[in-house]
Amino acid sequence: MRQQADVAVIMGSISDWEQMRGASEILDELGITHDRQVISAHRMPNEMLNFAETARKEGYKVIIAGAGGAAHLPGMIASSTTLPVIGVPIKSSALSGQDSLLSIVQMPAGVPVATMAIGPAGAKNAALMAARILAVTQVEVELALTDFQERQHLAALESSDQLYD
Amino acid sequence: MRQQADVAVIMGSISDWEQMRGASEILDELGITHDRQVISAHRMPNEMLNFAETARKEGYKVIIAGAGGAAHLPGMIASSTTLPVIGVPIKSSALSGQDSLLSIVQMPAGVPVATMAIGPAGAKNAALMAARILAVTQVEVELALTDFQERQHLAALESSDQLYD
Amino acid sequence: MRQQADVAVIMGSISDWEQMRGASEILDELGITHDRQVISAHRMPNEMLNFAETARKEGYKVIIAGAGGAAHLPGMIASSTTLPVIGVPIKSSALSGQDSLLSIVQMPAGVPVATMAIGPAGAKNAALMAARILAVTQVEVELALTDFQERQHLAALESSDQLYD
Amino acid sequence: MRQQADVAVIMGSISDWEQMRGASEILDELGITHDRQVISAHRMPNEMLNFAETARKEGYKVIIAGAGGAAHLPGMIASSTTLPVIGVPIKSSALSGQDSLLSIVQMPAGVPVATMAIGPAGAKNAALMAARILAVTQVEVELALTDFQERQHLAALESSDQLYD
Amino acid sequence: MRQQADVAVIMGSISDWEQMRGASEILDELGITHDRQVISAHRMPNEMLNFAETARKEGYKVIIAGAGGAAHLPGMIASSTTLPVIGVPIKSSALSGQDSLLSIVQMPAGVPVATMAIGPAGAKNAALMAARILAVTQVEVELALTDFQERQHLAALESSDQLYD
Amino acid sequence: MRQQADVAVIMGSISDWEQMRGASEILDELGITHDRQVISAHRMPNEMLNFAETARKEGYKVIIAGAGGAAHLPGMIASSTTLPVIGVPIKSSALSGQDSLLSIVQMPAGVPVATMAIGPAGAKNAALMAARILAVTQVEVELALTDFQERQHLAALESSDQLYD
Amino acid sequence: MRQQADVAVIMGSISDWEQMRGASEILDELGITHDRQVISAHRMPNEMLNFAETARKEGYKVIIAGAGGAAHLPGMIASSTTLPVIGVPIKSSALSGQDSLLSIVQMPAGVPVATMAIGPAGAKNAALMAARILAVTQVEVELALTDFQERQHLAALESSDQLYD
Amino acid sequence: MRQQADVAVIMGSISDWEQMRGASEILDELGITHDRQVISAHRMPNEMLNFAETARKEGYKVIIAGAGGAAHLPGMIASSTTLPVIGVPIKSSALSGQDSLLSIVQMPAGVPVATMAIGPAGAKNAALMAARILAVTQVEVELALTDFQERQHLAALESSDQLYD
Repeated sequence: MRQQADVAVIMGSISDWEQMRGASEILDELGITHDRQVISAHRMPNEMLNFAETARKEGYKVIIAGAGGAAHLPGMIASSTTLPVIGVPIKSSALSGQDSLLSIVQMPAGVPVATMAIGPAGAKNAALMAARILAVTQVEVELALTDFQERQHLAALESSDQLYD
Repeated sequence: MRQQADVAVIMGSISDWEQMRGASEILDELGITHDRQVISAHRMPNEMLNFAETARKEGYKVIIAGAGGAAHLPGMIASSTTLPVIGVPIKSSALSGQDSLLSIVQMPAGVPVATMAIGPAGAKNAALMAARILAVTQVEVELALTDFQERQHLAALESSDQLYD
Repeated sequence: MRQQADVAVIMGSISDWEQMRGASEILDELGITHDRQVISAHRMPNEMLNFAETARKEGYKVIIAGAGGAAHLPGMIASSTTLPVIGVPIKSSALSGQDSLLSIVQMPAGVPVATMAIGPAGAKNAALMAARILAVTQVEVELALTDFQERQHLAALESSDQLYD
Repeated sequence: MRQQADVAVIMGSISDWEQMRGASEILDELGITHDRQVISAHRMPNEMLNFAETARKEGYKVIIAGAGGAAHLPGMIASSTTLPVIGVPIKSSALSGQDSLLSIVQMPAGVPVATMAIGPAGAKNAALMAARILAVTQVEVELALTDFQERQHLAALESSDQLYD
Repeated sequence: MRQQADVAVIMGSISDWEQMRGASEILDELGITHDRQVISAHRMPNEMLNFAETARKEGYKVIIAGAGGAAHLPGMIASSTTLPVIGVPIKSSALSGQDSLLSIVQMPAGVPVATMAIGPAGAKNAALMAARILAVTQVEVELALTDFQERQHLAALESSDQLYD
Repeated sequence: MRQQADVAVIMGSISDWEQMRGASEILDELGITHDRQVISAHRMPNEMLNFAETARKEGYKVIIAGAGGAAHLPGMIASSTTLPVIGVPIKSSALSGQDSLLSIVQMPAGVPVATMAIGPAGAKNAALMAARILAVTQVEVELALTDFQERQHLAALESSDQLYD
Repeated sequence: MRQQADVAVIMGSISDWEQMRGASEILDELGITHDRQVISAHRMPNEMLNFAETARKEGYKVIIAGAGGAAHLPGMIASSTTLPVIGVPIKSSALSGQDSLLSIVQMPAGVPVATMAIGPAGAKNAALMAARILAVTQVEVELALTDFQERQHLAALESSDQLYD
Repeated sequence: MRQQADVAVIMGSISDWEQMRGASEILDELGITHDRQVISAHRMPNEMLNFAETARKEGYKVIIAGAGGAAHLPGMIASSTTLPVIGVPIKSSALSGQDSLLSIVQMPAGVPVATMAIGPAGAKNAALMAARILAVTQVEVELALTDFQERQHLAALESSDQLYD
């Protein structure tokens, strides 16, 4: 079953899951198959490179990688695959994710990481970015996205009413 | 001819072109068709929304948007399309692009922008990220990317020699 | 009734209301008519531009816009009206509103946003700034402002007593 | 002649003039009368308070104040008048205006300063914000602003051509 | 009694007292007479300048001024007296006192403020700095300071024991 | 001659002299005797502590200490004397003196350093702060300071004329 | 017993112990002998220099020093010994350890401090860095480190299971 | 010859050499054998891991790794060896090395990197830190370090003379 998932959601530590959970939930909501895995750049470097090198062959189309602090996972994954890699900066304890953000986004020319916002909002947007990538050729994902956008459009519209309660 | 391009490279001001030029060059190098256009979020808001709303119909598959300072272009484009939008924070004069970076990357949950590094490195990586997105389904782009990575791998390897000159 | 209000208080999300509430309260205190509305730059882009383009015709004289993170609402509103737009950077969760502040204040030459302090203090000051703008020609607002300043002057003076309790 | 000007452009030091000059030029372009003056918060505190206290009586309708570093001028002016005060953070030598920005924008609840972007862009926008404030009731300023916006709209549109030179 | 105090402890808002209290306590501990007062730069500008201009005549020898956010009090006081002014950056809610620090310390050449650390530690050190200034000529204050330093020296030495509990 | 100087101007490196020179010039202008010396916290730790411990006995009344980067000199000097120590954060190459500023100003409760602005402005203000400290009891320094302030007051006043050249 | 310890764990204040405790625990886990001591740079400057100057003679091979705010302890220790000094930036209350980090890491050329991450993670890594230094020549420490790395490798691998609970 | 070097000096890009050169020069000055090599984390990930895994066997005792931007090299090397790894944050173009510093220093608990100052000063200190590590057991390196420190002590002492030229 794992082999056929379109998206891999990986993270550097099990403690990142609380912030990354939203990625998984949005992918489910959009009907996009995905796996999830802890792959630590610093504690599992060989598994990490092996994962990156075989990801395309395994059938993945997009990789979402969350990491915090000196966040090396998204960039290192991107170095060993040609798949699009989406990075989520985990909100860290001392620097609130400013370290995670810079460690992920400031990649040198040659190896891109699609960086999202810090924390849970970024995790959710990683799922939506994965969907947009798949939607380039998958019509049903594009429809799911259009529907998602319409629903959040309506929710925003209606929320004004609460200002006069 | 423009209608059939896979990638649109847009920027908020003609003064951004110096930093964005690398995106165009890399796309050319990888054989990816693309258009380029100045679309100012603040001086052309209607054209901007119209561009975003019709981009998919026009045949674009990925949008690269560069902007600086209070950089609203990538996020506003992303709000009105389901295409993947890649944001490039232009290095600004007072804050060196820290304002551009935060204005692009800190999008709220619901509307993702794939943010790259500040300045020319980010522009080049935007092109490579666009290529990775196209390469999900276009074999020839994947081959071009693999070739690109191998060439930069060799260039890095060989550069060590200069340390003993 | 809404059409005749002098000030529009808008915000990017219903969750901003807690921080924006003070703007509404100060406007009431100064006897300035105002409406309030959620207008999301990213989830309601067309409504947003439409609001901005018709605001003057609707009779508004000043627009107060609060937004957080990659805060595009105040700047985009300012791009499509000639009314004065006052921006309030909402205190965000990861970066405490530093992202909101830079996204609002660092507007390019051509499109100004009158930026206030981060969070509730900024929201209150947005109301006072709106009042100062109206007071350029409305004598009764100028009197209300003078009275407000005198009251806070006295409150500050008297607060010294608590230092010797 | 000075007494009848609508806008006062003041700055903390003659060395700020290079960055503030754009405010004066835009006001001229829009046909708005204005005076300019060096008023140093720290070297001319009494003249500063006196200026603020009499500004409305002198006939000014808006005050633009530029200052750098520990920039106290805009906030102190705002403390002693009910006129709208627009603050321009001068780009400073060590901290690039980050100190100027925070010293101007982070005003406590009660005394608002309409803060613009750091440096010359902010100075130009200060003039445009002053114009928007005057345009609330002066039709000819509103027309000048509309014209200004249309011209910058066209300039942005046409600049795209340079991308294909 | 107030007229003869050596040190004035002033602050911009009664809400600063919680962080400033330590200044008062250390002054008491060192036997230094002092007054305390709320003087708001923005809500009591005239009283502020008057206080500064008459402080030396009133018999004060040192002024301690705490303020937060766009903290203008210490610098404005310093502009209107030749007494030494010690500034304490109050820890603010959104930016943790980074705004207060820069607004106080980044004074232009010509008007110095002796800036302390952010928050309660800075308030305590303001008292000790005042004592060092008085101790230049007052032997008994010098003795009190020497005694204070010796006591904190011993307390630090002895605290190591707790590492082996 | 050195023994009778009122102020010691020390700095961590000879390369700081360019930024510190203004302190020396202002002291001369105010007629305040002073010595100057390179004392490196990290390369001359014993000389540094010895200097601090004997400074009062040597007749110094105030110490001005400039240092950059991980700037430990002002705080370490303050730890071994009861004289007032004024710290000048040298503008550093990578971080523009933000590191110097925090290393000097964020002293723990117990050991105060009177911190000035980053760079040459801070050096000049260090001299003026030293003068204010001496002026607590030396009438002629107070007169020199009053004269200095009046001259900069007039210079500021007159500079406005240049705005109409 | 203390004299023969390989590692000295020192800190600037007893309040740092909560964050530094992990260093001690990891050293114990790896079987590395160590002492711990409060040595305050600012309250015990002579004891500090004396400790540094005699550390090698006392038999120490590595020094771990934690400090917060204007953190001078690691750098000052490094100035008076040739032993490797590892610095741990304590997470501070106002600036979350950004001040501690810069005060420790930005040492001038000539006196190195091996700086770790802010807070408890940095303290643990200080112990592991000390172990790596000892392991250059002590085989049994190298084995303990290898074992430690393998255990954390397995723990990371196994943690993935929790993602499917 | 390479196999017997004590220290490996590696860097992520040939463009880092200008800032890293000082490390090589200091090692030469101290008589420490070393190799130098470009090893790019992102363009040579397999060579990087292979280098790290075999470094101890190759005879290296310490690794110095310089990298800029999203600087992953030092941390990834540290993940695959038990040798001490010293990281040098290269001063980057947009963010002056703040990104490099955070990407290197903020390592998670478990994998330490001994981080130096940003830029050339950090590179020189990396060599001195490597020397301190070797000097734990190599007497001749300890002597060379002592001699180096004495020379810089004297140079600092003598530099004071230039203040009176």
